[in-house]
Amino acid sequence: MKRVLRADQVSQSPSVLDQHSHDESYHTPRRPDAVVFPESTEDVVHIMQVSAQFRVPVVPFGVGSALEGHVVPVKGGITVDTSRMNRILEVRPDDFLVKVEPGVTRIELNEALRPYGLFFPVDPGANASLGGMAATNASGTTTVRYGAMKDNVRSLTVVLADGSVIQTASLAAKSSSGYNLTGLFVGSEGTLGVFTEIWLKVVGLPEHIVGARAVFETVSDAVRASTAMVGTGLLVSRVELVSALYIDVFNRLEGTDFPVHPTLFLEFGGTRGAVESSVEMAREIAADEGCQRWTAVEDASERTRLWKVRHEAAHTFMKQFPGYGHMATDVCVPLSKLPGAIANAERLLESEGVRGSMIGHVGDGNFHVSLAVRPGDKGDLERANAVNKGLVEYALSVGGTCTGEHGVGLGKRKYQALEHGNALNVMRTIKSALDPDGRLNPGKLIDA
Amino acid sequence: MKRVLRADQVSQSPSVLDQHSHDESYHTPRRPDAVVFPESTEDVVHIMQVSAQFRVPVVPFGVGSALEGHVVPVKGGITVDTSRMNRILEVRPDDFLVKVEPGVTRIELNEALRPYGLFFPVDPGANASLGGMAATNASGTTTVRYGAMKDNVRSLTVVLADGSVIQTASLAAKSSSGYNLTGLFVGSEGTLGVFTEIWLKVVGLPEHIVGARAVFETVSDAVRASTAMVGTGLLVSRVELVSALYIDVFNRLEGTDFPVHPTLFLEFGGTRGAVESSVEMAREIAADEGCQRWTAVEDASERTRLWKVRHEAAHTFMKQFPGYGHMATDVCVPLSKLPGAIANAERLLESEGVRGSMIGHVGDGNFHVSLAVRPGDKGDLERANAVNKGLVEYALSVGGTCTGEHGVGLGKRKYQALEHGNALNVMRTIKSALDPDGRLNPGKLIDA
Repeated sequence: MKRVLRADQVSQSPSVLDQHSHDESYHTPRRPDAVVFPESTEDVVHIMQVSAQFRVPVVPFGVGSALEGHVVPVKGGITVDTSRMNRILEVRPDDFLVKVEPGVTRIELNEALRPYGLFFPVDPGANASLGGMAATNASGTTTVRYGAMKDNVRSLTVVLADGSVIQTASLAAKSSSGYNLTGLFVGSEGTLGVFTEIWLKVVGLPEHIVGARAVFETVSDAVRASTAMVGTGLLVSRVELVSALYIDVFNRLEGTDFPVHPTLFLEFGGTRGAVESSVEMAREIAADEGCQRWTAVEDASERTRLWKVRHEAAHTFMKQFPGYGHMATDVCVPLSKLPGAIANAERLLESEGVRGSMIGHVGDGNFHVSLAVRPGDKGDLERANAVNKGLVEYALSVGGTCTGEHGVGLGKRKYQALEHGNALNVMRTIKSALDPDGRLNPGKLIDA
Repeated sequence: MKRVLRADQVSQSPSVLDQHSHDESYHTPRRPDAVVFPESTEDVVHIMQVSAQFRVPVVPFGVGSALEGHVVPVKGGITVDTSRMNRILEVRPDDFLVKVEPGVTRIELNEALRPYGLFFPVDPGANASLGGMAATNASGTTTVRYGAMKDNVRSLTVVLADGSVIQTASLAAKSSSGYNLTGLFVGSEGTLGVFTEIWLKVVGLPEHIVGARAVFETVSDAVRASTAMVGTGLLVSRVELVSALYIDVFNRLEGTDFPVHPTLFLEFGGTRGAVESSVEMAREIAADEGCQRWTAVEDASERTRLWKVRHEAAHTFMKQFPGYGHMATDVCVPLSKLPGAIANAERLLESEGVRGSMIGHVGDGNFHVSLAVRPGDKGDLERANAVNKGLVEYALSVGGTCTGEHGVGLGKRKYQALEHGNALNVMRTIKSALDPDGRLNPGKLIDA
């Protein structure tokens, strides 16, 4: 490796290896054999050629904010850290496009776009790298309006297992030319190739934004209200459900006195007139579904304050358990199945005697249960896994998925056969055809 | 075949074979050896098993409205006509989902959805089958707002080359589980499998719709206005450019007196307040870009009248050339490159001495030049091909694609290497892995 890169681009120092041995999840760390820091597509080509020659695994690494062990090099090998590939290569305001290297983070990109009156709308919460977000098909609070990464990546430059370089698509807003490789590579978790350049769709900053909070008696009422708002075509840019239990924890730890009820956190964005009309209709829909208290604010700092409970929900929950690891479940179900899935989650927490709490991207049917797991505590892990398994089995039984946005990584491999059936064979066929040696992020996604 | 299906499901009558020998394009017809009419996924499995046993090609057929020879069985074999698989299997208003068989047409589906206050937004103009639309990743006038088929297919049931059946995805609104097979199969033009059931996303019918027409001095002015309207986040649901030449032809044939200038046809949809605010802002943007005349109407029949020139554009153009065949070009370019691409098209028509005219989905950068070709006239075809080639080469040189929505079929295969470069190898690898005998719609898309 030191023959194809500069000495400062290759590290085997214990601290660097440790830093690349884990992500933010509860999965067991494992050191890579070496970490490399490419600065260009050409560097990645050279790395891949070495990997091919010596049959050594290659594991791409962004900022390490993954939640399912995606970057843990379970079979050792070379970790490809993209942090030096962090240039914004081109901003094209008239085409609503931007070209970035994979190490650029979401917040860095949005800072660079602001002077153009543009932003990149996918917001998973963490300040993840855009390469990592593309690799896991990340989404988040704005997906109800703007879609997931697969809807916002226009084209990828990818270095394949054999070191060849492809462009997955043109820059046209739509195309029916050839197979949709962008769709295939987004969400492939580094198992089909390493992304080295990414063209992303960007959108205009909304002229006017309003934040709102709506308190309901039951989760079902809140979900019905959310579904009606989205179905009516209101300009909802975020709609998040926070469970009563989270609010209770927040009140106790932060000294606040929010009503301890299921609460929707909403954001509306667009032209002023359109937003005002949407907010008014949303308030009426919420009232129809039994909303007990409705608060709406325009000012940016007031919006931040209003949304604080939601933004800090997982963090606040974990504050109760210093030293514990965080397991976040991630099922996503058809909208009408969401109240049932949430009720099932509450039953599971109760029956397993596990302390957990729930937030949901209710516009998409996706919700997370935060579970606190003592590292190395077999009992904790078993109980948390039992909750997760129960959630996934319920979700699959109603047409849902085991992971709405975190990805498969290590933690969700065990559910792939149940979720995909015969389609898993097609995935394995594609993987074998494009990575016959199994060198690309081995042990992840479909690779048991 | 007659052993696995009923006698009335298999035909070799000359008229049936002729009917399945062509689509709506200028490509040379070729009869299949037999046409089969499956009524279920199981029927298609049996057909595929026969195909595998005797190594006979299988060509799926919807209503035959393709524009690039997709359904022409260039190597003979079995044409699978899906017209008897025309049931709407399930409507789930609360999940914004509908499950259809592939033979259901777009208009049939929308009639069935209307009582629920829902509609399926992809509108390619033709009353195509939804199976065919999914197979070509069709789009059309509403794509600027609602996306193409790839954005609106939730999951597919597919019969693969070996007769096995897969479900490409769950019904969840988003997922990061496994490879995105839905993305891969949509647009695969029957070359990877036969679709037998399709889950589609549907959306609420807008409360209020306004149609508008805006006349400009130049194509560039019109494109700048369109880009600004979309960029500002106005509720534009359609924005179409019709060239002065089309308007002139329309005036002459229909006795109207529309200004012979580049004209934008617009539609706005959403809640009343939001639409009214969008229309007002759109009018201001148009004026800023030099719009000379702006007309907006609310009433449904007035909207239809307003849009007549656009809806009948291609048909009206071809009326001038009775007995001619229609070649429709289909390049799509980044928005900022659209005025240059259109100017290039006008130069090409002039230099090749070809009578053609242009309409454009200007919100997406996609435009069609209609070319009239006398069947069997080698000179006509050569000149039309020269125009198409010039359009495609220009589009590819500015980051565009050879086909925005019609698909590759037979006619665009020759541009695949230039457009996709190394990525074409990946497409071929996938095709070989999933259809090793090359039985699925041979000769189409990437198969030269």
